[in-house]
Amino acid sequence: MVWPGVGGRHRALAVDPPDPAPGEALVEVELATVCGSDLHTVSGRRPGPAPGVLGHETVGRVVGLGDGPAPRDVRGRAVAVGDRVAVGIYAACGACPRCVRGLPQKCERLFKYGHVALAEAGPLSGGYASHVLVRAGTPLAVVSPDLPAALAAPLGCATATAVAAVSAGGGEVRGRNVTVCGAGLLGLLATAMLAGRGAAVTAVDPDPGRRETARLMGAANAVDPGAEPPPADLYIELSGAPGAARGAVARTATGGTIVLAGTVSPGAPLDWEAQDLVRGLITVRGVHNYAPADLAEAAAWTESAAARLPVEALLGAVHPLDGLDAALAEAARSTSIRVGVAPGA
Amino acid sequence: MVWPGVGGRHRALAVDPPDPAPGEALVEVELATVCGSDLHTVSGRRPGPAPGVLGHETVGRVVGLGDGPAPRDVRGRAVAVGDRVAVGIYAACGACPRCVRGLPQKCERLFKYGHVALAEAGPLSGGYASHVLVRAGTPLAVVSPDLPAALAAPLGCATATAVAAVSAGGGEVRGRNVTVCGAGLLGLLATAMLAGRGAAVTAVDPDPGRRETARLMGAANAVDPGAEPPPADLYIELSGAPGAARGAVARTATGGTIVLAGTVSPGAPLDWEAQDLVRGLITVRGVHNYAPADLAEAAAWTESAAARLPVEALLGAVHPLDGLDAALAEAARSTSIRVGVAPGA
Repeated sequence: MVWPGVGGRHRALAVDPPDPAPGEALVEVELATVCGSDLHTVSGRRPGPAPGVLGHETVGRVVGLGDGPAPRDVRGRAVAVGDRVAVGIYAACGACPRCVRGLPQKCERLFKYGHVALAEAGPLSGGYASHVLVRAGTPLAVVSPDLPAALAAPLGCATATAVAAVSAGGGEVRGRNVTVCGAGLLGLLATAMLAGRGAAVTAVDPDPGRRETARLMGAANAVDPGAEPPPADLYIELSGAPGAARGAVARTATGGTIVLAGTVSPGAPLDWEAQDLVRGLITVRGVHNYAPADLAEAAAWTESAAARLPVEALLGAVHPLDGLDAALAEAARSTSIRVGVAPGA
Repeated sequence: MVWPGVGGRHRALAVDPPDPAPGEALVEVELATVCGSDLHTVSGRRPGPAPGVLGHETVGRVVGLGDGPAPRDVRGRAVAVGDRVAVGIYAACGACPRCVRGLPQKCERLFKYGHVALAEAGPLSGGYASHVLVRAGTPLAVVSPDLPAALAAPLGCATATAVAAVSAGGGEVRGRNVTVCGAGLLGLLATAMLAGRGAAVTAVDPDPGRRETARLMGAANAVDPGAEPPPADLYIELSGAPGAARGAVARTATGGTIVLAGTVSPGAPLDWEAQDLVRGLITVRGVHNYAPADLAEAAAWTESAAARLPVEALLGAVHPLDGLDAALAEAARSTSIRVGVAPGA
């Protein structure tokens, strides 16, 4: 489904099935979930690839592999035709200085699914399609056929990023006060991960329904942004609201850590006093996307936690592929955590 | 020597030698060096303990111990009468929640030498004195009689804080670009520590003489703050200059770390864009004072590095105790890295 640019409607484009090159995999899409960043793209709030194929939270089945050794998934498993895989958001070259230094998400030749125009990326480059041609260097997670698709599709974006944010917060959280700003999917998943480790999580969101979902995910408390939660040993900002990042230092305890992962647009100057960071012994970690190990941890955590997660609260309607514009409109309008797009729906 | 407050001259106060209580040590001062923060206090730029005894970079000899088990120094050595010791800047209770969590420098009952008024602290509470009564819970480092006093006196403030700042920067620095802002004693010591580990250090300071000293300490390069050093993998701000903290994000490489340790006064809003921290995967660490393990590392490093450090470039004139006002005036006026005060001078 080709997005023509801001204000335009998607149109279907038929393509011949490609032969995957060595290291590539052809994945038949089972479900793609609509990430908030796609809504920013469609509304014009952030630059988008036009014309291009959007979508980057995808689970599907491997229907073809290139010649040569099978690609390994993030847990070291050789990927085979028939495997159900969650597709990572990017492909990294593995050879540039940033890849070599363990920052593949900042690869100098980074390719991001659903983020590159058709002319450059080709047609099977996003999740809103019948198939995705998965490039060499893409983190993939082979997942169980039993894992609900609502949890499997976001693995390669929201869940792995939530893991990266939680990991950036450091070690032991048992008994610690953790504030999670934003009860969208990232915040909800981070809440569940942290609550599962024994943290006392306060979720912060202006929407009462999302606060209720945060409680279902294990938050000890869920409050409006105007409230004053207890000083946080760990403050994770996933909302992108400028005030949430600005207010972080004042809401973090001495020796605490602030993780910023929600803001990827300009216009949020922090206005922190340097001495407050110094005297408070505060650590700040910027997190953007994730490394393959985070996707591995995301897959393992999701498989172990799936039975106790309120899956039905995380995914609203699932639309067929030719209903993509309606799906995007619903995602923008509703308070559903995620809306789905499924070629087979 | 009692400081009466801003604008006043020190006066000598004679006191009877106290009997150390259990856990305490009476230390005869060999040398106290003048830290920049004392100059801020004397000039009124920061609130000071008046009337009180200043000075908190002190080396001396143990001349008395309280009854009971001998205190242990930061390297686990039982402290004995006759030992030469560098005195830490603080005493911590060891029992409050912050002490228990490994933040003794933020102890809820923190005592800081040279920072508390006479009425509360008693007369032997700072380094500008013939003796210091060292309280239980004070990090002490027993040092070799051979260690130059110019290096031993600052151990408990500048050197241990430099270690804490360098440690906050994280692991391997070999071959990495490190920017050290400020070539006062902290910056010079951090430069020497990092250069010794193979980092390519760029020291930043407006003073040409200090830049020259930075080169003697191992900086690969030493530049004016107006210069544009290469993007830093590690950016350590020790100058306290607001621009140095504000400019840190723009001067730090993707995936890099910023350590802020220089700013302990208000008036330095950072004005960073949240998205630059996020997209740059940048870590920021606030560092204020240090933990006992940092003093242990400082002592070990100083002993191992002393032979190759330009000691004569680090300490200017040494004044007798009754010349303390002249010493402070010289420290404020000159570009000496440190000025000394020695009861025996």
